[in-house]
Amino acid sequence: MASFGAKLQTNAAEIERALEVLLAPGPLSGPGAPPARLVAAMRHGTLNGGKRLRPFLLRETAALCGTARELSLAAGVAVELVHCYSLIHDDLPAMDDDDLRRGRPTVHKAFDEATAILAGDALLTLAFGHMGEHGAADPALRARLVVELAAGAGSGGMVGGQMRDIEGETTRLDETGIARMQAMKTGALIRAAIRMGAILGGAGTDALGHLTAYAEAAGRAFQLADDLLDVTASPDAVGKATGKDAALGKQTLVARLGIDAARRHLGDIVHDAITALTPFGPEADTLREAARYFATRES
Amino acid sequence: MASFGAKLQTNAAEIERALEVLLAPGPLSGPGAPPARLVAAMRHGTLNGGKRLRPFLLRETAALCGTARELSLAAGVAVELVHCYSLIHDDLPAMDDDDLRRGRPTVHKAFDEATAILAGDALLTLAFGHMGEHGAADPALRARLVVELAAGAGSGGMVGGQMRDIEGETTRLDETGIARMQAMKTGALIRAAIRMGAILGGAGTDALGHLTAYAEAAGRAFQLADDLLDVTASPDAVGKATGKDAALGKQTLVARLGIDAARRHLGDIVHDAITALTPFGPEADTLREAARYFATRES
Repeated sequence: MASFGAKLQTNAAEIERALEVLLAPGPLSGPGAPPARLVAAMRHGTLNGGKRLRPFLLRETAALCGTARELSLAAGVAVELVHCYSLIHDDLPAMDDDDLRRGRPTVHKAFDEATAILAGDALLTLAFGHMGEHGAADPALRARLVVELAAGAGSGGMVGGQMRDIEGETTRLDETGIARMQAMKTGALIRAAIRMGAILGGAGTDALGHLTAYAEAAGRAFQLADDLLDVTASPDAVGKATGKDAALGKQTLVARLGIDAARRHLGDIVHDAITALTPFGPEADTLREAARYFATRES
Repeated sequence: MASFGAKLQTNAAEIERALEVLLAPGPLSGPGAPPARLVAAMRHGTLNGGKRLRPFLLRETAALCGTARELSLAAGVAVELVHCYSLIHDDLPAMDDDDLRRGRPTVHKAFDEATAILAGDALLTLAFGHMGEHGAADPALRARLVVELAAGAGSGGMVGGQMRDIEGETTRLDETGIARMQAMKTGALIRAAIRMGAILGGAGTDALGHLTAYAEAAGRAFQLADDLLDVTASPDAVGKATGKDAALGKQTLVARLGIDAARRHLGDIVHDAITALTPFGPEADTLREAARYFATRES
């Protein structure tokens, strides 16, 4: 039985390879050929050795529900494309204005702002096209996955959370407001990834409910751990400027609760995530380890 | 039998109403509620009395293939959402830097740049979610429509064309290069709209081929007429600054051919579009009128 770390690495390598094929530089001319500069920017923002956690969660959940991992690869790629587009747009000067991402120049630094906006738009579009064409063998399931992905990524999910986060730079949020913003900004796509895995695996209503509860707790753990890393880790470890959230006046639960209380709260959330998986027995151990991993990762 | 103008107005009113329902301001709180400012920006960029030509083409094509207009409304809304998002992003300072759109402030002027980027992202996401959920009664057809919409909107279509247009500001394109850029930037979404109507209407391979030929000619006519308007119309008539393409050094066939030759070329393209519809007989008269309308519109 492969270790958790080995499973994570296998998934990351498979997603990276699939993204490489999908975003292979095409012929430089011909009608309808994606422009070389646009493809290069899409690749820069995507093929970066990421941990591919959202596809991992999607595929592990699908596997738990009985779907072989090779059948969930395309859906995993689609959710990762959405994640990568969101990072490109979040890094833009008008948004978080970040120069570095995983230790490399952000897309608008390596190219320019217009190219970064368009590369993000193209990746988001590609995510839905890929999901609609390859996300599942059954076309009805593909349509359902598209709807779930859009719900997680859109105005009531990730993009809405990013808007709330920006508004939070000038408006003080209470703990509920911070939790809601984070549940949308980070949580919604993680939740959608896990639910897409469950849908792909044919989960019934009860199983989908348990997995959604797991997903929501796992998403909270992921974000809280991220906020803790922002104040405790070195820039080298996380590959971007740390302490930046505080400098931007961004509101986090860590800033509100203090580091020690935030760490205790993180332990409680991980416990919630693990408990939500009880009905699945030991088969769900990889997802349990994923929740623990979120809370203890160092980058 | 309603006149062409009346049909255009009826469709525009139906699309406007459907968009109004879809983008209705929701409750201002609650987990997963889209932030009010984001919804306001999405509405500003969408509910603007547009002519809704792409939904019109989609729905007329579906009707020609035997699908009642009420069954193509949602797919029409989805393609219009993509068009509206593209205008918001194209107007951004890093892109075309436009202050006015249809006589009103552009979204980044009425709100701010970050909000405009996110509103565009949210509308694009909503387009795919809406298509995946409501685009057709048959879920397999919905998945196919999602794929067609993504192909028209993505790196090999509209976004790729926008990239080529920006590159053209600094690199001289030949006539073929301009035609290719425009076929992607403007043509690809018009082509996708007409093909989605055909797919929704269950068109066979031959009919889809004829309608695609019509779509490609109609798209060229639309763009050439737009370029002619940019150099000949008053700002009041088109609701935005005219002569702007020339000022930006944008390359158009009008700039290359001269106004008179461009007008003659436009006549030829409209003829091509009309001829492509021959197999459909008089049933296709509304689509023929649409091609003529593109070439003669004054705004």
